[in-house]
Amino acid sequence: MGYADLPLDQLRRYQSEVTRPDDFDEFWQRTLKESRAAAAETRLEPVDNRLTTVDTWDVTFSGFGGQPVKGWLHLPANRGEAPLPGIVEYIGYTGGRGLPHERLGWALAGYAHFVMDTRGQGGDTDDAGGSGSPSVPGYLTQGWRSPEDHFYRRLITDAALAVDAVRGLDAVDSSRVLTHGISQGGGLAISGGVLGGAQAVLADVPFLCDFPRAAWISTRAPYDEIVHFLLRRRERADRLFQTLAYVDAVNFARQAGVPALFSVALMDPTCPPSTVYGAYNAWSGEKSIREYPYNQHEGGQGYQQREQYDWLRGFLN
Amino acid sequence: MGYADLPLDQLRRYQSEVTRPDDFDEFWQRTLKESRAAAAETRLEPVDNRLTTVDTWDVTFSGFGGQPVKGWLHLPANRGEAPLPGIVEYIGYTGGRGLPHERLGWALAGYAHFVMDTRGQGGDTDDAGGSGSPSVPGYLTQGWRSPEDHFYRRLITDAALAVDAVRGLDAVDSSRVLTHGISQGGGLAISGGVLGGAQAVLADVPFLCDFPRAAWISTRAPYDEIVHFLLRRRERADRLFQTLAYVDAVNFARQAGVPALFSVALMDPTCPPSTVYGAYNAWSGEKSIREYPYNQHEGGQGYQQREQYDWLRGFLN
Amino acid sequence: MGYADLPLDQLRRYQSEVTRPDDFDEFWQRTLKESRAAAAETRLEPVDNRLTTVDTWDVTFSGFGGQPVKGWLHLPANRGEAPLPGIVEYIGYTGGRGLPHERLGWALAGYAHFVMDTRGQGGDTDDAGGSGSPSVPGYLTQGWRSPEDHFYRRLITDAALAVDAVRGLDAVDSSRVLTHGISQGGGLAISGGVLGGAQAVLADVPFLCDFPRAAWISTRAPYDEIVHFLLRRRERADRLFQTLAYVDAVNFARQAGVPALFSVALMDPTCPPSTVYGAYNAWSGEKSIREYPYNQHEGGQGYQQREQYDWLRGFLN
Amino acid sequence: MGYADLPLDQLRRYQSEVTRPDDFDEFWQRTLKESRAAAAETRLEPVDNRLTTVDTWDVTFSGFGGQPVKGWLHLPANRGEAPLPGIVEYIGYTGGRGLPHERLGWALAGYAHFVMDTRGQGGDTDDAGGSGSPSVPGYLTQGWRSPEDHFYRRLITDAALAVDAVRGLDAVDSSRVLTHGISQGGGLAISGGVLGGAQAVLADVPFLCDFPRAAWISTRAPYDEIVHFLLRRRERADRLFQTLAYVDAVNFARQAGVPALFSVALMDPTCPPSTVYGAYNAWSGEKSIREYPYNQHEGGQGYQQREQYDWLRGFLN
Amino acid sequence: MGYADLPLDQLRRYQSEVTRPDDFDEFWQRTLKESRAAAAETRLEPVDNRLTTVDTWDVTFSGFGGQPVKGWLHLPANRGEAPLPGIVEYIGYTGGRGLPHERLGWALAGYAHFVMDTRGQGGDTDDAGGSGSPSVPGYLTQGWRSPEDHFYRRLITDAALAVDAVRGLDAVDSSRVLTHGISQGGGLAISGGVLGGAQAVLADVPFLCDFPRAAWISTRAPYDEIVHFLLRRRERADRLFQTLAYVDAVNFARQAGVPALFSVALMDPTCPPSTVYGAYNAWSGEKSIREYPYNQHEGGQGYQQREQYDWLRGFLN
Amino acid sequence: MGYADLPLDQLRRYQSEVTRPDDFDEFWQRTLKESRAAAAETRLEPVDNRLTTVDTWDVTFSGFGGQPVKGWLHLPANRGEAPLPGIVEYIGYTGGRGLPHERLGWALAGYAHFVMDTRGQGGDTDDAGGSGSPSVPGYLTQGWRSPEDHFYRRLITDAALAVDAVRGLDAVDSSRVLTHGISQGGGLAISGGVLGGAQAVLADVPFLCDFPRAAWISTRAPYDEIVHFLLRRRERADRLFQTLAYVDAVNFARQAGVPALFSVALMDPTCPPSTVYGAYNAWSGEKSIREYPYNQHEGGQGYQQREQYDWLRGFLN
Repeated sequence: MGYADLPLDQLRRYQSEVTRPDDFDEFWQRTLKESRAAAAETRLEPVDNRLTTVDTWDVTFSGFGGQPVKGWLHLPANRGEAPLPGIVEYIGYTGGRGLPHERLGWALAGYAHFVMDTRGQGGDTDDAGGSGSPSVPGYLTQGWRSPEDHFYRRLITDAALAVDAVRGLDAVDSSRVLTHGISQGGGLAISGGVLGGAQAVLADVPFLCDFPRAAWISTRAPYDEIVHFLLRRRERADRLFQTLAYVDAVNFARQAGVPALFSVALMDPTCPPSTVYGAYNAWSGEKSIREYPYNQHEGGQGYQQREQYDWLRGFLN
Repeated sequence: MGYADLPLDQLRRYQSEVTRPDDFDEFWQRTLKESRAAAAETRLEPVDNRLTTVDTWDVTFSGFGGQPVKGWLHLPANRGEAPLPGIVEYIGYTGGRGLPHERLGWALAGYAHFVMDTRGQGGDTDDAGGSGSPSVPGYLTQGWRSPEDHFYRRLITDAALAVDAVRGLDAVDSSRVLTHGISQGGGLAISGGVLGGAQAVLADVPFLCDFPRAAWISTRAPYDEIVHFLLRRRERADRLFQTLAYVDAVNFARQAGVPALFSVALMDPTCPPSTVYGAYNAWSGEKSIREYPYNQHEGGQGYQQREQYDWLRGFLN
Repeated sequence: MGYADLPLDQLRRYQSEVTRPDDFDEFWQRTLKESRAAAAETRLEPVDNRLTTVDTWDVTFSGFGGQPVKGWLHLPANRGEAPLPGIVEYIGYTGGRGLPHERLGWALAGYAHFVMDTRGQGGDTDDAGGSGSPSVPGYLTQGWRSPEDHFYRRLITDAALAVDAVRGLDAVDSSRVLTHGISQGGGLAISGGVLGGAQAVLADVPFLCDFPRAAWISTRAPYDEIVHFLLRRRERADRLFQTLAYVDAVNFARQAGVPALFSVALMDPTCPPSTVYGAYNAWSGEKSIREYPYNQHEGGQGYQQREQYDWLRGFLN
Repeated sequence: MGYADLPLDQLRRYQSEVTRPDDFDEFWQRTLKESRAAAAETRLEPVDNRLTTVDTWDVTFSGFGGQPVKGWLHLPANRGEAPLPGIVEYIGYTGGRGLPHERLGWALAGYAHFVMDTRGQGGDTDDAGGSGSPSVPGYLTQGWRSPEDHFYRRLITDAALAVDAVRGLDAVDSSRVLTHGISQGGGLAISGGVLGGAQAVLADVPFLCDFPRAAWISTRAPYDEIVHFLLRRRERADRLFQTLAYVDAVNFARQAGVPALFSVALMDPTCPPSTVYGAYNAWSGEKSIREYPYNQHEGGQGYQQREQYDWLRGFLN
Repeated sequence: MGYADLPLDQLRRYQSEVTRPDDFDEFWQRTLKESRAAAAETRLEPVDNRLTTVDTWDVTFSGFGGQPVKGWLHLPANRGEAPLPGIVEYIGYTGGRGLPHERLGWALAGYAHFVMDTRGQGGDTDDAGGSGSPSVPGYLTQGWRSPEDHFYRRLITDAALAVDAVRGLDAVDSSRVLTHGISQGGGLAISGGVLGGAQAVLADVPFLCDFPRAAWISTRAPYDEIVHFLLRRRERADRLFQTLAYVDAVNFARQAGVPALFSVALMDPTCPPSTVYGAYNAWSGEKSIREYPYNQHEGGQGYQQREQYDWLRGFLN
Repeated sequence: MGYADLPLDQLRRYQSEVTRPDDFDEFWQRTLKESRAAAAETRLEPVDNRLTTVDTWDVTFSGFGGQPVKGWLHLPANRGEAPLPGIVEYIGYTGGRGLPHERLGWALAGYAHFVMDTRGQGGDTDDAGGSGSPSVPGYLTQGWRSPEDHFYRRLITDAALAVDAVRGLDAVDSSRVLTHGISQGGGLAISGGVLGGAQAVLADVPFLCDFPRAAWISTRAPYDEIVHFLLRRRERADRLFQTLAYVDAVNFARQAGVPALFSVALMDPTCPPSTVYGAYNAWSGEKSIREYPYNQHEGGQGYQQREQYDWLRGFLN
């Protein structure tokens, strides 16, 4: 691959120039309030995951606009009575919650592990309410005309309300709920975690950070959707970037108050390291980052998972 | 490139194995009926196209479910009093109607030329009413669960109603309305033309033909959306292909009663020639096809346009 | 794609270091004089373009060395008696004038539109007089040993004499003749326009600008012909670049005295933006440029055409 | 991708033409006997895997020539007293056993799960005893001169002895030990399972099958190592293929006596489906195969894992 | 790479369908006669090749139309008095004779070795007399309108006259002059050898064979020039293939009367094996071929050179 | 390609930051001493190279640990009595000594030319003694745990002892022995030449220079083996680079005392020019470098060979 972003010393000091809309807070507080008002009770159905060590429930909770959003809740089979710390995990771009035996890392380590499905992507949750405005294939430009309509308004709201839902579960210690994700999941861990008031955030090679720079330097999907959109409809750049500012993880990071553990891969062409540092350097809470110098978008994988297990052992005990 | 489809003699005899759903006709007649019931009057606004030889109007007509669909109407500036034959043109995948001075070929040759915008793609028309069901980026799998929900149900309905709308224009001779398009536009020329009762159809390197074969042999976007969808959600193949059968141009061709002029590019990796022959050989009306042996998806371009001018001169006079 | 040229602020100030040969003017004045001396009368034959709104003639005029060069003359069918402003359009690399119904934009807007064919490329004009000196496939190194022999000496002379030819047509207002082109056509619009004394120049994502930098940074055809040539015959670099300096648009721009409207695509890997700015910043007349930040070599397309229609409306009225 | 192997009906009937060396059995029985004679006791060290639901041991057992080979043993934390059925898992090409918390699927479902490290590849086990004969990068041509020296002689012996080692563990029911793997792991599941006398074999998109055909049709790593080797040393083909016949899974399948569950991906360019069917159709025991029509080398993933959980529930109870 | 041409048994029996023009012989005899009539004496200038074992002369002989063509003559420094058998070597596409110390294999083995430069390509010989007719970059379509004008008419004539020139050298035994080449050089060894009356022909992975099939199946440069030409100018196919039939090595092979040694690489995407067999199976003299199953266009390289040394030892002694 | 390394002025001043291990000298002196102690006599067998101008012997000399290493010795057939200056040539990555008639350039110019085979790569020499430690395909990470085990310890020792062996031949003037190579051969020419006490070094586009920078910026094989290794085993970076420092040509260059002629290709993506300048600028003896601005890894080829012939003529006479 070869390293291709800013010189390392500039990279680590890089400050994103993403604009923070004046009504950013107001927009999101209103959105959350409306969606919470429409919420129904969370439903849990046990499922046969074929496993003996983990119990899994098929969960339906109320996301954006009260719409049903799916997820898996995994608990260790040999858990005790005490409520467990909860982790809400979000999924990478175009993926979904998958099969009930597939994504279990946090449950295995003793956490109440909630895997949130991604609306309209590869899972089992519909994305009702899209505006249908013209876009290019992918999700970044869906509803580009206004933050009200944008796809990520709905998904980030789901992410924040998943924290609500998990906090409300009997099996969960409501004072210890965290968010985690990789790539798109990492972006949602930031925005959903900040908005949903999680106690900590784990964001790995996060996507959805610093859109203007990402569009300018990225050579890969999915950030290149922005270029695909603008190369034909050249007059739409200002409005698109105004809308994207409302869902940019950089703007959520700027108002973060809790600890975060990030990871970044220095040869990552998908989520270039400067866009990750754009969010990390904006993070206003306590923070730490792990650099993987020779990795592309696969990032730290099991190594980072181990870092997280250890960081959380310290954090939670 | 190199030729990569069936041996030539087999290619020219190839019969698609796409299933025709029992309620195919019923489904479409009901759809048309409901949408026609919701139709409002077509609106025309003159626009400044910067040109002296062509007059252009910004058109809004009622498409699927009565929803507003945009288009440009181009008429020769030096036209007489007599109504002109009309041509409805549909646009290629992810494109839109573009700028008012961009796509004028039929108006220049003396036709009333209507360029229909494509809902939800690169133009100015929203695609209201999507189900938001999980899909992969692109349009082929949007609403895959049922023909009721599928994206192309809405777009094909727009295409058929555009024929209605053009037929209703004062400037147009309602007994001579044709459909035309390239790639996605070619697929829509078939389905929209058959459904809307056009007097003839011009389909160039048409997309949306013979989905099972296309998914199996194509190595390129956009047919590869099907593979992208199924490679992760392996259980969805039957249902997806059942749904796609309702929007497959092969099934429209089988009930065609009017003349058609097709074109096919033999080295086309995007719309492989056997999928085009799948629709062509199914066409039940009078028909003719032009082969471009050394072309890829660009097809015949100006050469085919000249064929069409000449074919229509014979046809219309 | 991703932006890959100089930082934006340096890009906009970039000055080409192309050398201007001492005998540059003398060389070109002599060339023009000799070719004009050999010129025959321009011939026009009406052709059936299948269109009702535009009249087209097959034109043969005298280019380099008096050799016959083809072109199409398009006039609006509904023109009046008054002579029209004329636009000479040049074609992109390896292309030719195409079919008579294909490239009509300026005629539609009321101009006398002359599409010059490109000798020895994809059209209908032979390139007599090549030296046959060793070269690599393509046109940049044909006749590299001396400016006398270089392919672009002949083509630029054609381009300048096309201005003569158009100025001499009855239908054209000889005081208002402009040049226009995209890519290779843009480079020829500069050199042919300056040399032929056009009243203005429209150059879109021009090729043939700042060869030393282009060869050094470009990763694509056709600038990479220079590298292909030099990587084997390493001793030929100096002489090749000395020859290319005579046909470099930068050197024509330095002596320009008329207004110009440029366009540049910032993600253009074919004609990298710094090479375009190399010519633009060298332009010594009145000038203006449109930047397309998210485009590659397709540039501004219809958007730029609209800019040009509007810029010319102001300019010509 | 597009389907690119034999027509489907031929694919399913395809018979590999790999030669079975006369001394195949003798060769392997001698190899096993010598290595078993050199075996030391299996050593287990508990490791901190950071998990609460699974207990893990760092295992060292005696592989080829008595050399130490590493592995992880995972047992469900909440297991009872009764010995568990055991599954030996082998790893894909260039990989290793990874971190102790990474590959746990079988332990979660109640099995004693042993992950065998791969000598000389990406894990923690050295490959002592290589002949160092000339080869190309990769493992397929290491020791090509003779089956005695070939890399896969040593690795397949490790795989067979891992079955011994697992069978000897207290926690394991020695009458129910199976082998499983994906890609290279799938090839080893066949050869190691047959040689080691496993009770059943699970082979997913197996590599190491039908080398002559694989070398002839594959366009990808790692089968292309064979082509890379032979394209330079053209005289070595016969000897190389003679050696490879001793480690070809087809030859192990021909003497299999236990049930097997295979999977194959029909668009797999890495392990083309005909090479998988080459081994599957040669399998002389009870057998079943799952086809994934739209998948490449990722194969069935979680879907196949679920098939396997269910198939084994039937098999083991 | 993977094998991608006809099944092996069909490959070896493949008969090219290239048409033989009625006046093929007449065309070439006239061409030779005219060029021989214009021939001047061959000139030799000694050059400092920096070597002690080989003596080299810079040769100028009369090629097509008597035009000067360059070459190197290499003789062993320690040669005796007796004239040596001569080998005329032709160069691959876009190459030239190179530097005087670069291509010496035949001289080292005791032959009088003449390396003919390629007009207009990467050497030191001009290609005077090109028609300049429109073409695409490369040589296959230069002068496509008629065999009189085609580039390869001139180059093949050079190749035949090089045999004359070598036969006329004092150092050469005029009864033993052979032709040899790889790729384009292989095609010229066939056509130039047959036309020039060489005593034997050595053709390695020859180019310029069976153009219609090559254009149809090849996916690479330079055969793809034909597709590049025809994809835009679709009406020119018949005439182009009529012209190419005059320079197709298949038509020369059909009238060959001397022994030939061919080589073919079965995974060659540049000169697909069926096009080579097209020429080989047409060869009407004694013949032999070496197949390299795992090679691409590099072919047999030193292995084939050794085959040739040995074949010629038998042939010449 | 396009230039992609440091700005030219920085490139030429670039200083590698490779660490020089404290025991670098001690390590290598001990290694040489042990291997020399194990050396047997050099054996020469005449071979039939099919040539009349060069005599060739199949040589076996004692390399690392006294192990047999193969090579070809080429002498001009027409040599006199006087001993000749000797040149030891090393081969590029994955290659071997090839066939006896293939690589003869130095013998042709009057030198005693010894082509050293590369152990374990594409030739005829085994690489006994590998540690078999886990690695990725290729040679850079073989034995990464310690300089004792690393592959290049053995190969560099062979390279140094080849100088011994050649110096000991009767046909060679022992006071004039040089080393030469391209790519891997260039790296070995540096390390083997410095270690073996050659009188001069010729290093073309050398590999094995400045590993930390190479791994960081290279996008190609074989330097990307380092990234392939570290992207999975992230904890191994420090140890790997510590080991590589012992075989880095930069560290040999720092102690060089004899003249050297380097070459560098400025568009070389395989051995990026800054890594070559890293070694060149470290060279502590007399030195000169030739830059090839438009070349990739093919470098100067025959041009550089001519430079070398001329440089040596001056040097040796």
